[in-house]
Amino acid sequence: MKKPTILVTNDDGITAPGIAHLIKLMKTIGEVIVVAPDSPQSGMGHAITLEDPLRIHRVSIFDGVESWECSGTPVDCVKLARNVIFKDRKIDLCVSGINHGSNAGINIIYSGTMSAAMEASLEDIESIGFSLLDFSHEAIFDHADSFILKIVKTTLEKGLGGGRLLNVNIPKCSEQPIKGIKVCRQGKGNWEEKFIEGKDPRGNKYYWMSGNFINKEHAEGSDLLALSQNYISVVPSTSDLTDYAQIEDINQKINEA
Amino acid sequence: MKKPTILVTNDDGITAPGIAHLIKLMKTIGEVIVVAPDSPQSGMGHAITLEDPLRIHRVSIFDGVESWECSGTPVDCVKLARNVIFKDRKIDLCVSGINHGSNAGINIIYSGTMSAAMEASLEDIESIGFSLLDFSHEAIFDHADSFILKIVKTTLEKGLGGGRLLNVNIPKCSEQPIKGIKVCRQGKGNWEEKFIEGKDPRGNKYYWMSGNFINKEHAEGSDLLALSQNYISVVPSTSDLTDYAQIEDINQKINEA
Repeated sequence: MKKPTILVTNDDGITAPGIAHLIKLMKTIGEVIVVAPDSPQSGMGHAITLEDPLRIHRVSIFDGVESWECSGTPVDCVKLARNVIFKDRKIDLCVSGINHGSNAGINIIYSGTMSAAMEASLEDIESIGFSLLDFSHEAIFDHADSFILKIVKTTLEKGLGGGRLLNVNIPKCSEQPIKGIKVCRQGKGNWEEKFIEGKDPRGNKYYWMSGNFINKEHAEGSDLLALSQNYISVVPSTSDLTDYAQIEDINQKINEA
Repeated sequence: MKKPTILVTNDDGITAPGIAHLIKLMKTIGEVIVVAPDSPQSGMGHAITLEDPLRIHRVSIFDGVESWECSGTPVDCVKLARNVIFKDRKIDLCVSGINHGSNAGINIIYSGTMSAAMEASLEDIESIGFSLLDFSHEAIFDHADSFILKIVKTTLEKGLGGGRLLNVNIPKCSEQPIKGIKVCRQGKGNWEEKFIEGKDPRGNKYYWMSGNFINKEHAEGSDLLALSQNYISVVPSTSDLTDYAQIEDINQKINEA
């Protein structure tokens, strides 16, 4: 049987440990191809580069894997992979990550990792974003290997349907083994920003974004809860942002006043 | 009665004609405050600036309106408005736009205009993004004035509920008057990219994103159809990207194999 072709990308940049780990795992399953940003692109959301030209360069940092770095955003990488670099190749799956840091809850909308995965899903490629709840460069990924492989193999064998997109988050490595996989909804919560005020070398004021994530719920079924209980969370996700439950109500308010 | 405080932002930048038009309209309803990008930020999606400091400057281009320009993305602007510039002020509504160009269908996920509005909704501020199906700097906005005012006044009087967010798109001005307002779901379609290949002055290859939007449906109820029939489309939108219909199916595939 022909091995599936798996496109790997991320938002931490092509030299991040997380993507190297994901490539290593994917090589046990399929033919791996890589297009990833040449610099860190955390928090880029679904940004695309319209005002500037993009550059791509072949790199040789992963043994036996055709790999390209790109000057743009994670979404640019997927568009270039699909339309330029591998335009004549069938891509069976896209995996993005492993992100250094959580993309659970509302983090999905800020996440370059998940936006790259969503872009692939829009190109009709089933797609999975993986994120680890550990920002550190030295983060340990091994404890999730068997679960990542299970999720990827299941996707390749059975397909995803729906929005063709999974948001997978992995608890930080600890002395407790991961309990299993919970399929969840996106938990409620948001970032409470604190802007650090400072002065640059010329004495001009600046503001630098910082903040803490506020978990606004602990109800059953959310990814945030599953992760806090040491489960891997899997949220089937979609690019359809319609709030269907509100359509009739808003129509009445606007049109039947 | 105290006038409502309305925060105006956009993604085309603080000098774009669309935001000037929206400010003019909002001044007839409320106390207007403005925080908008100091340069065009189209296609920035929900990007935030993590790696660099942000700058803000007071500007005096709108009569009697406290206005600030910001060096960051549209989402940065809303975060700075809420947490720094107007942190002690109650904001009753956020309006974003009027965008020069459509944010109907899948465009919502790439749109800085809609991401700014969504960010406000996450801060518990009801929020509306307005976009005109005309990219031109000379675009005419007047034909939609009465509809924009109706949508904003209805929101202020009755509230939005749900995701607290509306995506409003307006047909390009033509000889046909706008027929009315349709409350819709996000239509299906995507961008078919074409990357223009070229060489820079030093002879190095670049790729520049271009493309056409492909409308993949004409079914009743979508914003794309309503706009093609010369209606204003209003899509109640949400930052919850969960594909609820898939949760049980994915759970069976992964956990009950």
